[in-house]
Amino acid sequence: MGNVSPFAPKHLPHLAAIDGVRIATAASGIRYPGRTDLLFVLFDPGTAVAGVLTKSKTASAPVDWCRAHLPHGIARALVVNSGNANAFTGRRGREAVELTAKAAAEAAKCQEADIYIASTGVIGEPLDARKIASRLGGLAGEAKGDAYEDAARAIMTTDTYPKLATCKAEIDGVEITISGIAKGAGMIAPDMATMLAFIFTDAAIEPAALHEVTAPLVEDSLNAITIDGDTSTSDTLLIFATGAAARRGAPRIARGDDPRLVGFRAGLAAVLRDLALQIVKDGEGATKFVTVKVMGAKTKQAARAIAKSIANSPLVKTAIAGEDPNWGRIVAAVGKAGEEADRDRLAIWLGEIQVAKDGEVASSYREQDGAAYMKNREIAISVDVGVGKAASTVWTCDLTKDYIAINADYRS
Amino acid sequence: MGNVSPFAPKHLPHLAAIDGVRIATAASGIRYPGRTDLLFVLFDPGTAVAGVLTKSKTASAPVDWCRAHLPHGIARALVVNSGNANAFTGRRGREAVELTAKAAAEAAKCQEADIYIASTGVIGEPLDARKIASRLGGLAGEAKGDAYEDAARAIMTTDTYPKLATCKAEIDGVEITISGIAKGAGMIAPDMATMLAFIFTDAAIEPAALHEVTAPLVEDSLNAITIDGDTSTSDTLLIFATGAAARRGAPRIARGDDPRLVGFRAGLAAVLRDLALQIVKDGEGATKFVTVKVMGAKTKQAARAIAKSIANSPLVKTAIAGEDPNWGRIVAAVGKAGEEADRDRLAIWLGEIQVAKDGEVASSYREQDGAAYMKNREIAISVDVGVGKAASTVWTCDLTKDYIAINADYRS
Repeated sequence: MGNVSPFAPKHLPHLAAIDGVRIATAASGIRYPGRTDLLFVLFDPGTAVAGVLTKSKTASAPVDWCRAHLPHGIARALVVNSGNANAFTGRRGREAVELTAKAAAEAAKCQEADIYIASTGVIGEPLDARKIASRLGGLAGEAKGDAYEDAARAIMTTDTYPKLATCKAEIDGVEITISGIAKGAGMIAPDMATMLAFIFTDAAIEPAALHEVTAPLVEDSLNAITIDGDTSTSDTLLIFATGAAARRGAPRIARGDDPRLVGFRAGLAAVLRDLALQIVKDGEGATKFVTVKVMGAKTKQAARAIAKSIANSPLVKTAIAGEDPNWGRIVAAVGKAGEEADRDRLAIWLGEIQVAKDGEVASSYREQDGAAYMKNREIAISVDVGVGKAASTVWTCDLTKDYIAINADYRS
Repeated sequence: MGNVSPFAPKHLPHLAAIDGVRIATAASGIRYPGRTDLLFVLFDPGTAVAGVLTKSKTASAPVDWCRAHLPHGIARALVVNSGNANAFTGRRGREAVELTAKAAAEAAKCQEADIYIASTGVIGEPLDARKIASRLGGLAGEAKGDAYEDAARAIMTTDTYPKLATCKAEIDGVEITISGIAKGAGMIAPDMATMLAFIFTDAAIEPAALHEVTAPLVEDSLNAITIDGDTSTSDTLLIFATGAAARRGAPRIARGDDPRLVGFRAGLAAVLRDLALQIVKDGEGATKFVTVKVMGAKTKQAARAIAKSIANSPLVKTAIAGEDPNWGRIVAAVGKAGEEADRDRLAIWLGEIQVAKDGEVASSYREQDGAAYMKNREIAISVDVGVGKAASTVWTCDLTKDYIAINADYRS
């Protein structure tokens, strides 16, 4: 612990205020001494919300809450705590969520159904929501527009740096802003969303359209990363669109396939991709950032499954940590994926270096070239499985002794 | 490296000679200096063989060879080398197998189709089979009946102790012997067999019946273990029945459902289970031996999938290494398995200690009891997922810094 990822950005991006969004944070004492662990975000009336939640069969109480209220599509506040996931906490977990929603609705002067909640941290320990509820009224008074860095810091668990991303896009000629924060670090193999990611925009997009635009973009961003293959009980992506840009002439978009969303879609994809890669680069104990591209598969799903098999293989990941161009382990990971692949047409590249061709080591390959390549901090593995035209890319990090150290004593 | 597993047996079992089986080993210089790496086992005419091979889509050349010849059901010799898996070696790999088979057939005075071959070690490096072929003639002359420990040592890679098991059983009142050797250590998540396991018996059982008896027993022995979730390209289980017991009055069994096989089946199951557990206990870097039992599932397949999800979770495995009763990670692993489970009826035990009940921490549970239990060297995790009556057990080990150390420099 204590070591900052070698990929930590030297300068954090500045996220400007977005009309209709106000932010406050506090140290509520849930778990971490001496740091903020509570985030309260308030939205102006008329804010649309969409989201993508974990597919875990043991989803947390806050995920259940969000799933129940998302169809309704309106948000007035978001409450996030770090340090305790409020997962596998039974009746008491549901009660903690209800208490939080009630206090947040009072503070934001809205209905409880307009409150969204996320929690991250230890699983199975009862969450004392009174520590949260008692702070929300005060926080509502302090909330301000440009506190995104504070927000990103308040939701961190074993993250070594806060994760922020922003971009501008145009809708029908009107500039809008898309900003996001996320947290990751461990238990990262998101299945429909990362642990926690929140996107804010002033665009005016109705809830159904917002969902239609957002959900497909998750597949090649937050769902395309893996740190340890361990899908969380709490994975939550929420996107809030305040609609404030309508006051500056932006149209109100009602359909996800509206052609005026082309710039917004590209901007949102960039923000999601940026946050996803920041999560991987802050993987617990990570020293290498790894891009795994699988080509020549029968379907995109097959390509993704093979890429995940490589990216989740402890043997591949430890070899990368050891800077060993041990491509035989890549072959084994392709083989265990269970998807169609032609062993005798398999080709593998490390960066631009072709290592294997037609099912055996490439005649041009020299071990010392592979070994030199593995010294890089960013590693690209490309595999052609030789049976079709589909491709998929996933991102991961290496598996180091520090991952073990961090996770062997996470609770102690 | 160099550290012997804390589970290494204080005394190795003595495996007596089996009529019809002769064994020789050599240091062929394929990879490891100063140790044996080549095993040659000769069988008397009339020996039946059955086997179960890896489901990997990138299976090794020796696995291809065995798959092609197993239907024929007759074996006269087995050649095994360690240090080089002869996997992903293309045409040269096939030629290496053919050269080995030819030399072994000459040495054993039989057809090439009666030769079985297995290789374990690094993937993707061409195997110089001349180092093997040139030794087989001499080894045939030296082979003797009681060299099982030598055999088990010659097939080791990162194993820290040789794996041997033996038992006696009766067929129709005649005592027969079932003995086996195996190797494991890493890339262990066998899918239809472990990396390498060889069983020898003097029972007289025809090939089809031998297969019928053996294949189902693999499911709850070699297929029920996992060290790192990495299925190998080389997984091979072969069982050789010399039939020599027929000379002592044992019947020749032609059908797998022959009721006279009841004792043999139980004995074989015990030997397979014994070898499987020895493999787990010698998992790379292992300090804890872990039994994961999942109950209350809809089907046995679902129970197995959930158990494997727990047993392969890096977060569960690192918590065990850190002696942390972090049962929240068990909940998350149940959730990510994707199989039906009732979160609100989930129950979890560590040994005899009930940790969770009805979807939350059990009221009787005290954290200090869990923490004390985790100090044990052998850990039992039991989970009731609350939706049915099916159960399955898998075995695994913890994930330690030594696993990383061993695998970050395996090839260097």
